[in-house]
Amino acid sequence: MPKQPVAAVILAAGMGTRMKSDLPKVLHEVGGKPLVGHALASVQGLDPQRIAVVVGPETDAVAKAVAPVPTTVQVDRLGTADALKQARDLLVGFDEGTVVVSFGDSPFIRTETVARMVAAREEGAHVVVLGFEPEDPAAYGRLVTDADGGLEAIVEFKDADAATRAIRLCNSGVMAISAAHLFALVDRIGNDNAKGEYYLTDIVAVARGDGLTCRYILAEESELMGINSRTDLAAAEAFWQDRARRAAMDGGATLRDPASTFFSWDTVLGRDVVVEPNVVFGPGVTVEDGVTIKAFSHFEGCILRAGATVGPFARIRPGADIGEGAKIGNFVEVKNAVFAKGAKANHLSYIGDADVGAAANIGAGTITCNYDGYLKHRTKIGEEAFIGSNSSLVAPVSIGDRANVGAGSTITKDVAADALAVARGEQRVLEGVAAKLRARLKAAKAALKKS
Amino acid sequence: MPKQPVAAVILAAGMGTRMKSDLPKVLHEVGGKPLVGHALASVQGLDPQRIAVVVGPETDAVAKAVAPVPTTVQVDRLGTADALKQARDLLVGFDEGTVVVSFGDSPFIRTETVARMVAAREEGAHVVVLGFEPEDPAAYGRLVTDADGGLEAIVEFKDADAATRAIRLCNSGVMAISAAHLFALVDRIGNDNAKGEYYLTDIVAVARGDGLTCRYILAEESELMGINSRTDLAAAEAFWQDRARRAAMDGGATLRDPASTFFSWDTVLGRDVVVEPNVVFGPGVTVEDGVTIKAFSHFEGCILRAGATVGPFARIRPGADIGEGAKIGNFVEVKNAVFAKGAKANHLSYIGDADVGAAANIGAGTITCNYDGYLKHRTKIGEEAFIGSNSSLVAPVSIGDRANVGAGSTITKDVAADALAVARGEQRVLEGVAAKLRARLKAAKAALKKS
Amino acid sequence: MPKQPVAAVILAAGMGTRMKSDLPKVLHEVGGKPLVGHALASVQGLDPQRIAVVVGPETDAVAKAVAPVPTTVQVDRLGTADALKQARDLLVGFDEGTVVVSFGDSPFIRTETVARMVAAREEGAHVVVLGFEPEDPAAYGRLVTDADGGLEAIVEFKDADAATRAIRLCNSGVMAISAAHLFALVDRIGNDNAKGEYYLTDIVAVARGDGLTCRYILAEESELMGINSRTDLAAAEAFWQDRARRAAMDGGATLRDPASTFFSWDTVLGRDVVVEPNVVFGPGVTVEDGVTIKAFSHFEGCILRAGATVGPFARIRPGADIGEGAKIGNFVEVKNAVFAKGAKANHLSYIGDADVGAAANIGAGTITCNYDGYLKHRTKIGEEAFIGSNSSLVAPVSIGDRANVGAGSTITKDVAADALAVARGEQRVLEGVAAKLRARLKAAKAALKKS
Repeated sequence: MPKQPVAAVILAAGMGTRMKSDLPKVLHEVGGKPLVGHALASVQGLDPQRIAVVVGPETDAVAKAVAPVPTTVQVDRLGTADALKQARDLLVGFDEGTVVVSFGDSPFIRTETVARMVAAREEGAHVVVLGFEPEDPAAYGRLVTDADGGLEAIVEFKDADAATRAIRLCNSGVMAISAAHLFALVDRIGNDNAKGEYYLTDIVAVARGDGLTCRYILAEESELMGINSRTDLAAAEAFWQDRARRAAMDGGATLRDPASTFFSWDTVLGRDVVVEPNVVFGPGVTVEDGVTIKAFSHFEGCILRAGATVGPFARIRPGADIGEGAKIGNFVEVKNAVFAKGAKANHLSYIGDADVGAAANIGAGTITCNYDGYLKHRTKIGEEAFIGSNSSLVAPVSIGDRANVGAGSTITKDVAADALAVARGEQRVLEGVAAKLRARLKAAKAALKKS
Repeated sequence: MPKQPVAAVILAAGMGTRMKSDLPKVLHEVGGKPLVGHALASVQGLDPQRIAVVVGPETDAVAKAVAPVPTTVQVDRLGTADALKQARDLLVGFDEGTVVVSFGDSPFIRTETVARMVAAREEGAHVVVLGFEPEDPAAYGRLVTDADGGLEAIVEFKDADAATRAIRLCNSGVMAISAAHLFALVDRIGNDNAKGEYYLTDIVAVARGDGLTCRYILAEESELMGINSRTDLAAAEAFWQDRARRAAMDGGATLRDPASTFFSWDTVLGRDVVVEPNVVFGPGVTVEDGVTIKAFSHFEGCILRAGATVGPFARIRPGADIGEGAKIGNFVEVKNAVFAKGAKANHLSYIGDADVGAAANIGAGTITCNYDGYLKHRTKIGEEAFIGSNSSLVAPVSIGDRANVGAGSTITKDVAADALAVARGEQRVLEGVAAKLRARLKAAKAALKKS
Repeated sequence: MPKQPVAAVILAAGMGTRMKSDLPKVLHEVGGKPLVGHALASVQGLDPQRIAVVVGPETDAVAKAVAPVPTTVQVDRLGTADALKQARDLLVGFDEGTVVVSFGDSPFIRTETVARMVAAREEGAHVVVLGFEPEDPAAYGRLVTDADGGLEAIVEFKDADAATRAIRLCNSGVMAISAAHLFALVDRIGNDNAKGEYYLTDIVAVARGDGLTCRYILAEESELMGINSRTDLAAAEAFWQDRARRAAMDGGATLRDPASTFFSWDTVLGRDVVVEPNVVFGPGVTVEDGVTIKAFSHFEGCILRAGATVGPFARIRPGADIGEGAKIGNFVEVKNAVFAKGAKANHLSYIGDADVGAAANIGAGTITCNYDGYLKHRTKIGEEAFIGSNSSLVAPVSIGDRANVGAGSTITKDVAADALAVARGEQRVLEGVAAKLRARLKAAKAALKKS
């Protein structure tokens, strides 16, 4: 961890026109979290004293998304140095230590990498630039180093001669800068270039002109994957998922088909969890040890406790707590409901806003009628209760311990422990009527065809 | 576009024994359309005056599939030149311009490529052959060019010497031929070869013998992917899907996992559509801007209007029209039904042959009983109506605006606007009976185990 | 097939700590079968006279899994030679022919390869070692051959000089050994090494010291894929699935997306079966010719007869027999039930422990109530019967041929052929009550918000 104070400024003012989206680019998600959230997390790992996000004039949504992190607006898009200047007020009084400048659309820079930049800064460099050696250096700016391995210059590709273009070390734009020198340097960056913009990369030239020390730190190319299009976004998602899948397997989970298992940034998977193909973990999911997740299951904001079995075709939604050894089967939706130890809902059910007692058994096709059009109400099902198939439980309602609800019943009043409740129409059988009905319908169909 | 008339003949007489199928090879599908349909589309893009498909004697099904495009039968499979001769009647009077000859199992030739062939023909060539440079030239016939880049000969691999085999330019078999010369040339192709068949490739030698001009045009290898086995078919599908996925992303849709998003040839996706993993678009689907499609959803013949939210686990079938901002949730099937603006069916429902009013809310487990065994009937649900969970609506039936159906009801008669309808049995509770029942069943189970 | 008797010993005593699992490594599954099951199958193909599995002291579960194959426990893990010695009792009297020694975590060695080893043994070699030439020989032991292609020595990587390390031929550890010489050789293997363990690889040095003949046989690298981590397991699964997918396609099945079609070791797929994306075949599934399987379907222990159509979103469980041309649709679960020719259950149903007659039609939302909390009961549905939507059939119960059950009914008593049965509450409509209710609920919600 850094020895001196750290501040971080995330530049996130761009719309990203190549995304062809009404959503600001940095709010597009990877692993269920906006790009800017990843960028924030990578610097927040250093526990910075100050942190600020620079947003664009039409990107209120970004300010909302990053709150309570403070934001400042870059009204005119006059380049990265101009963007950084917008954070001046938020950095007032931050006069020693390091200011890290990073980008909202670079989600994969590891905290360790930022820490290495800060450490290099603390060891005496005034400006530390994050470099990388891409497979295809293409049109990236090049980092020119001196004999001692220090950073002599950043040369834009278009200004580079053949020898400079042959350099494989490229500029990521991410920097760690001495807080004491930051604005003194930035304010002297000019805009004498084709677009008339102020580029933060020019800080190296200004600093070198002052006799200050510039260095670079090397990152993996994958850390600097930038996102400019939906195709880039898909590639970033794939990269992120691959990393998450490996971590899950290294932790002792079996993913039968890693490529069809989708994690979110905060998914927690225990040991000896078995995941069949085609499973999606939305945000906020914890899976304890020994849980079996069958194919085609979808999770959000829930906990699956040790030894539970879920799926195939299960949808477990926010607020669901699936108890130890409990079972949720096919075509079952659970929302904001607690299943105690060993409780079961195996088929075609909707269990919402409910408390299900230990070892209770909920039959196929059971629906908790939790919504009256205005308010949600809760259903309580007791321990070892047995809910017959195709029942409707109209909340608020309570089914007692060991009580039994007859199949096909609509239950509107509480049922005591050990009681049997039935609510259905009497069965009437009309002999031969189906045959007559059939004849009539057949005739009707034939008539219709003729007409 | 061509300046002179164009006719197109698609050769599609082969069964494709390596497919091991009772279905003629060209009826196997890629992107939800038969191979021969793709082949037709690539020439139909030029708006040809005549078009014909040559089918085999056992491939009536192909004739049906391509109708109203006229077909002609190749009774004996005596080679590609013989196949082309079967189209003679269909080309009677087509004496100027260009005849394009293509194959029913080559689905990926772009219309632009065919247009380039036709243009080359119109610029003075009598025979234009489509060539390609495969990564592995293998046993393809080679195109031998003369000093001027003209086409001197097509040499079959088995007849080629080492120098000719070293040529990377291969024959696809696809041709554009001067209509004025077509049958004069084709009729002189002989069958003096191992199999005693008439090969269209020999047309080049015949034409050159007459002093006519032969040329070639180069296509991408991917355009000439041929399909001979189920493995080839899977590879073709993957290629096609990859192209469709890129197009969707370039258009401004987010595909969280492109590899598990499956398109059909006519899928239309708007801007800022978000598609979670594992989504299948069958034929005839249009998705407007800003629609969110959650994982595990399946669509056919439907429209999702702006801002709708669908899935996970939704199945939307032909005739479904999901209105602006409407919601279709998990384990819900919609067929031939119109959901007006903001209407919802979130859980475990079957809504078929129905009109659902704006902002209506359909509870979990609701079923429209649309079929009496002979005829389908329609259900009408009014604006802001509230259908309680687990209800059955027996069509034809109408639920009025803002009406309310009690949970668990079976509705057989119309319900007026603002009315409450309930149709269910009275709840009876038998105290202690569940306990007794439990004891009896337990004993029965024990007895069964003993026996 | 071997000419002399064969015995096989599978070494399976390791826990596999890198798996981070409470399950012994060899019980982790590939293609739905434990690794040790695959290892057994590869030697069982030779119909061995004796077979034994050496398990560890904490791996009772392995003994259970391989039963009735006899097992013996290696109490102290003192190396592979020590493990083999534990099989001494099980090999008493097996004095001629060949003993094959293989590993429980090597699932992919083909029976043909083992047969080649045995043949080499029978042709006069005393010890035959299975070698392979991995892309990356890494730290594998190297096989040193003599001028005649015989096997001179196995040199461990750490003991190998540069020249030996340059050898690409590596030791798999799998062997075929002369039964007559086996223990005479094994008992003389020492433990003079860093770990103080007895290594079976040393048998070559002992045998050569006796003037016996040692040879090697070459296998494909893929056959020797070992599994040490969950990542290895996922890679093995992917390799196995790829092989199964190719076999299915070669047999005449269409897999629209092979990568999302998952087979089990015993899946049987007919000709002209069409499989849409995202389908999981669990163990015990047979699919006859011409079956169409739509996306998102999940199968275990069932048979789909010729021309049946299943899915999307179907779950077919053990004991299901889906008849010729029958249809099982979306969100339908079938368990231990027979569907006769042309029977249909198209939507949102649970059909368990049932017999469904030919051409019967089961409406949306139908549930067979097969479980009373203690015992399962059977439902019989007659030919051409029509079960109205959202019905509950409380088993044991029988619906006669051509009988009709009204929508929303709970049927508890048998229904005769041609009869119509209805069991539901009378519909009551309370005019204007929904409007009043709405006002009241709205007020309640407002009050709640205020408080």
